Amino acid sequence: MICGVDTDIPLEPILELIGVFVGAMSGALAAVRKQFDVFGIIVLAWAAGLGGGMLRDVLIGAVPPVGISNWRFIMTAVLGATVIYFFHPRLERARRFIEVLDAGALALFSVVGTIKGLEYGTTLTAAVVVGVMTGVGGGVLRDLLSGEVPVVLHHRQLYAIPALLGSTATAVLWWQEAITTATSVAVVAAVFALRVGALRYQLKAPGPWRGTVR
Amino acid sequence: MICGVDTDIPLEPILELIGVFVGAMSGALAAVRKQFDVFGIIVLAWAAGLGGGMLRDVLIGAVPPVGISNWRFIMTAVLGATVIYFFHPRLERARRFIEVLDAGALALFSVVGTIKGLEYGTTLTAAVVVGVMTGVGGGVLRDLLSGEVPVVLHHRQLYAIPALLGSTATAVLWWQEAITTATSVAVVAAVFALRVGALRYQLKAPGPWRGTVR
Amino acid sequence: MICGVDTDIPLEPILELIGVFVGAMSGALAAVRKQFDVFGIIVLAWAAGLGGGMLRDVLIGAVPPVGISNWRFIMTAVLGATVIYFFHPRLERARRFIEVLDAGALALFSVVGTIKGLEYGTTLTAAVVVGVMTGVGGGVLRDLLSGEVPVVLHHRQLYAIPALLGSTATAVLWWQEAITTATSVAVVAAVFALRVGALRYQLKAPGPWRGTVR
Repeated sequence: MICGVDTDIPLEPILELIGVFVGAMSGALAAVRKQFDVFGIIVLAWAAGLGGGMLRDVLIGAVPPVGISNWRFIMTAVLGATVIYFFHPRLERARRFIEVLDAGALALFSVVGTIKGLEYGTTLTAAVVVGVMTGVGGGVLRDLLSGEVPVVLHHRQLYAIPALLGSTATAVLWWQEAITTATSVAVVAAVFALRVGALRYQLKAPGPWRGTVR
Repeated sequence: MICGVDTDIPLEPILELIGVFVGAMSGALAAVRKQFDVFGIIVLAWAAGLGGGMLRDVLIGAVPPVGISNWRFIMTAVLGATVIYFFHPRLERARRFIEVLDAGALALFSVVGTIKGLEYGTTLTAAVVVGVMTGVGGGVLRDLLSGEVPVVLHHRQLYAIPALLGSTATAVLWWQEAITTATSVAVVAAVFALRVGALRYQLKAPGPWRGTVR
Repeated sequence: MICGVDTDIPLEPILELIGVFVGAMSGALAAVRKQFDVFGIIVLAWAAGLGGGMLRDVLIGAVPPVGISNWRFIMTAVLGATVIYFFHPRLERARRFIEVLDAGALALFSVVGTIKGLEYGTTLTAAVVVGVMTGVGGGVLRDLLSGEVPVVLHHRQLYAIPALLGSTATAVLWWQEAITTATSVAVVAAVFALRVGALRYQLKAPGPWRGTVR
């Protein structure tokens, strides 16, 4: 069971729950920084941890989305919020560690999201779009709900681009009927490596061409 | 007919229309304060009055949502916008009265939204989530569309928490096959009382634990 | 094929692609002004060019929406982003020309969106709502994602109102079984003329009645 999808890929569901947990922590941290109340902290944790999958599910017709119907996922998001609620001053210092966990979640979600789209019979194009959305959509919702411009759209980090490459590779493998446990794990690993490498070497996505407009 | 749901519960549809009307007024008032134009005022009235139910309907697959397909609901929202359009200086002073009406709408919508979710065959978890969303989602959309951080996430009032308790109680009653006119009216009344009590006694939801992070 | 709808109306698909292209340019321009990175520029182009149709498709149950499943539409949006990416300093000066193209897109999308709603069996009311949404929704998403209050809600231009009149006329024609190539082209032309006239003569939508509240 991956994001509510039965697959042959034996990625342990624990991996996905870790992804939700990490996303939820990022949402709860944003809420704490904004001095949201306890309901706001939980909502932002839920939106950040599960929002990408919910956007995907609504767009492919997999309703109700697992982000509202699966209590394990929701409890995991609440757990992430709880950890941040009590330990946020300490966790601010663990930022680098959380960024690496988040790279894992990004890699896993973009591949799993693409596969779920394909299993619902979408076009390859749609599967790539919902794959990227599964990876980055939670962060976009988190930012919109906390009154920020979505960071993934302007921070110039290599964040969405590894997800896009991973989703595209997954869709191509599916199209070539070459999607197996081994190949999908390889794609997840490659996206993870690219994202961690981008963090390590400060790789940047380009801004507007000759930024002549302010 | 409650929010497009046939139920045994003889809550008069008029109650629901009052809920939409009150929500619409809150949206129109936000739009007037921001000096929106007449289209913006109507859109915010519509989003605030019907947005929560629309989020619910999209998530449970009840499309098209009643918020776009039922002209009675839409006309009620437009009526709320019209009243604000002409009388907003006067209505600013009736804020307390509107808050009490809004407490009624919150109570009704969270219970009715939960029941609609259950009738569409969702899990109990999903029904609770969409119930809360029916209650508070319109306000979230109103705030996002007017460029504000959703007030329900940070105002520290007891607003979402009564809705959450009401949705949970409704789902538990359903699960126990104890949902009747009497029990559901009792839940609505309890949520209403809790919300009005929170207004009266200024009860607060907690912010971040030991707010040591700004 | 109009927005994924088979109709008798022989409006060339090229018209629709031009609409997507123009919308995408407006999104990419907003992203460039905000100094978004290359991913942000593409996402805003996609949201602005295809977001209105995606909102419509999700609300009427036409999932996955053409905005994620049809590669021609997506490539057109990417092309619009590419043109802005390289030529934005020059295109700032072509604003008036782009506004006229955008008026054409608004007219086409509001009529086509209404027809698609009706073909999916919605009520006349819902078809009008999704028609307007197809016309103005992309701009709303663009503004929300770039951290702006949706301009269509407060700019006091006649923009949404021509779309609303066009959608309503289309729904009435459908209801009277008078929707033909000729009548629908006439509605598109009328909406276009009204919008261009509003640009030319600076026609305004009213703000709040006696704006006595700031």
